[in-house]
Amino acid sequence: MSLLVMKFGGTSVATLDRIRRAAKRVGREVANGHDVIVIVSAMAGKTNELVGWVNETSPFYDAREYDAVTSSGENVTAGLMALTLQEMDIPARSWQGWQVPLKTNGAHGAARIEEIPTGNMRAKFDEGMRVGVVAGFQGISPEGRITTLGRGGSDTTAVAFAAAFDAVRCDIYTDVDGVYTTDPRITSKARKLDRIAYEEMLELASLGAKVLQTRSVELAMRYGVKLRVLSSFDEYDETAGTLVCAEEEIMESNVVAGVAYSRDEAKMTLLRVADRPGIAAAIFGPLSQAGVNVDMIVQNISEEGHTDMTFSCPVAEVPRARKALDAAREAKEIDFADLVADTEVAKISVVGIGMRSHAGVAAKMFEALSDDNVNIKVITTSEIKISVLVDRKYMELAVQALHDAFELEKAG
Amino acid sequence: MSLLVMKFGGTSVATLDRIRRAAKRVGREVANGHDVIVIVSAMAGKTNELVGWVNETSPFYDAREYDAVTSSGENVTAGLMALTLQEMDIPARSWQGWQVPLKTNGAHGAARIEEIPTGNMRAKFDEGMRVGVVAGFQGISPEGRITTLGRGGSDTTAVAFAAAFDAVRCDIYTDVDGVYTTDPRITSKARKLDRIAYEEMLELASLGAKVLQTRSVELAMRYGVKLRVLSSFDEYDETAGTLVCAEEEIMESNVVAGVAYSRDEAKMTLLRVADRPGIAAAIFGPLSQAGVNVDMIVQNISEEGHTDMTFSCPVAEVPRARKALDAAREAKEIDFADLVADTEVAKISVVGIGMRSHAGVAAKMFEALSDDNVNIKVITTSEIKISVLVDRKYMELAVQALHDAFELEKAG
Repeated sequence: MSLLVMKFGGTSVATLDRIRRAAKRVGREVANGHDVIVIVSAMAGKTNELVGWVNETSPFYDAREYDAVTSSGENVTAGLMALTLQEMDIPARSWQGWQVPLKTNGAHGAARIEEIPTGNMRAKFDEGMRVGVVAGFQGISPEGRITTLGRGGSDTTAVAFAAAFDAVRCDIYTDVDGVYTTDPRITSKARKLDRIAYEEMLELASLGAKVLQTRSVELAMRYGVKLRVLSSFDEYDETAGTLVCAEEEIMESNVVAGVAYSRDEAKMTLLRVADRPGIAAAIFGPLSQAGVNVDMIVQNISEEGHTDMTFSCPVAEVPRARKALDAAREAKEIDFADLVADTEVAKISVVGIGMRSHAGVAAKMFEALSDDNVNIKVITTSEIKISVLVDRKYMELAVQALHDAFELEKAG
Repeated sequence: MSLLVMKFGGTSVATLDRIRRAAKRVGREVANGHDVIVIVSAMAGKTNELVGWVNETSPFYDAREYDAVTSSGENVTAGLMALTLQEMDIPARSWQGWQVPLKTNGAHGAARIEEIPTGNMRAKFDEGMRVGVVAGFQGISPEGRITTLGRGGSDTTAVAFAAAFDAVRCDIYTDVDGVYTTDPRITSKARKLDRIAYEEMLELASLGAKVLQTRSVELAMRYGVKLRVLSSFDEYDETAGTLVCAEEEIMESNVVAGVAYSRDEAKMTLLRVADRPGIAAAIFGPLSQAGVNVDMIVQNISEEGHTDMTFSCPVAEVPRARKALDAAREAKEIDFADLVADTEVAKISVVGIGMRSHAGVAAKMFEALSDDNVNIKVITTSEIKISVLVDRKYMELAVQALHDAFELEKAG
């Protein structure tokens, strides 16, 4: 019997009626001969309500109690989904994290999955259960306390189950109908991709295309889980959505798969840093400890024992970064003339595994931006990605220009 | 270290502010040197919302999924209470039923507690925990599924913990300030009792004084748990509320402790029943199978092989009773001339352990009712209770007359 994993997000189970619609999709797969593991989120809004109560009760809360409270919404949806399936005469039951058990480490609030023993649930499939409905987002720690996997953790739950049970595929039902070459709100030429490689999806996910939790894509890549993203609001057909899969399963593709952007970036420059071995560690160590998510780093050519150091981080973290660096200067761990923050920049990235074998992508990118008079402030590259910082006012223009330049409206 | 159990009902934890007020009461007991086990209900209204969703999803629901869904409200309150206590610098943590574990049988929706192993929680008390906050109403079945104990089950959870942990007392905080000689809405002379015996409380609980779940009182009596009922909205003092305890701990008491009533009763009479050995079983067997809760039973003197049989049941169950008896006559299991239902009666009961040693209580009761021209339709008695059925229009009058006749406004 082939097993399929299907995951429904909060908007897909927001009401009893939507739970019924989701259950019908599950029923179709059961009729197709699949056993199914369904992963459900809390009904839309429920987890936010619980998080609000915790924050109001205790601003510096005990993360173990945060998890005990915020995991409860998924239990409700799991039970309601099981009941809905039973009403359709499909043998189903709900599973809470501790019942599976989904074992995690003890990092409450952002726990990592360590093991999913399959024995309990397989025994129920053997007894005739056709659908196991699992409360997403939750597990248990080695101490037997409830853990949660971080916001969006139900995607990771789904992929982990697909890996543990060797599922034929993991379908992620959400409120968008797939992964696009870029944000359709920025250009109407944005095209839904039929397939995308894990590596590309990872770069796009972490670059701000909020379709899938980054960790779920990492996990899918590691275990070779075929991941399909599709809308729970569209009519179903076999080719719906976007399949996230291994590079080898994509026959033809464009050199560039998509253009991502991140709006609220800041460019920080430390002027006339006293240069010495270990200076980068002395700068970025304190930033990391202060919880600043440093992204791009560029060091200018050093002259006369001094250098300029530029990095980017989210705009919201600028005050924290400034405080950490001033403190390090105070403690004489680093020395610099000034710290200049440009909080009006955005990051634009082109992503594609085809870059590995195609030269000239960077040149084409820079030329396209130059043609539209978009000034590039910082550049970083990786094997399958080129990112630039530009003035925020040029963000939409830059995305459109790059989408056109790489002809992403056409299938590869 | 002496251990105290405190239970807070839904109205006592309905908002974050009320949870804080409840936590302050817990804090005072901790300051007094107690370790405390707190049992919490769901925030008022939450369980009803969940029950509504289950009923809408599946009218003939799987009770295991009903339990998985409806138990979730208590988990939220338990976590929030633990966080609130932590904010007061009291070492506290939440416990869900399966974490204790509170073991029940497999009767989902109305499970009975089988065992509460104390090792897990005692270990945490030994490590410095001062308050264990337990989600009430829930446990786990031998199969590892979540069970619930029936509505009001958190009272039973509290008493079971008090018994298992040999608590000095079990305080039930609710929205009334104790147990009264009768319903204060019927006579302003109703007086709060300082103490009441388990047996009396049991009769009053099952007679409609909805202060405590009957099973919780049974359990308290069996294990000798001192139970105190008090309001979570009043200022605290040492003598607040009513202590439910063993007869021996009540120094002085009135012969009659209280007057209870039950409004929506029906009196059913089977006329000219063909009398034979086993006829009572032939009548009441089908009624029981049909789910009719028969209360009082009176059989008139038999003549010429026929008898009249009278019983009472809730008004709402009259159609069901009629259907069951007609079916039994159809099947020739019983024979009777007619079935007469009087749906306009109420039951009045006087309850008191003092009756055991005092004669004349029945005579005094009948005389008081007669003085006010209240006609008695059916009488039943037990060792510590006398119940009568009267026309419903006389219900308030009868309760007032009996409260006066036994001088219940005066302490014993």
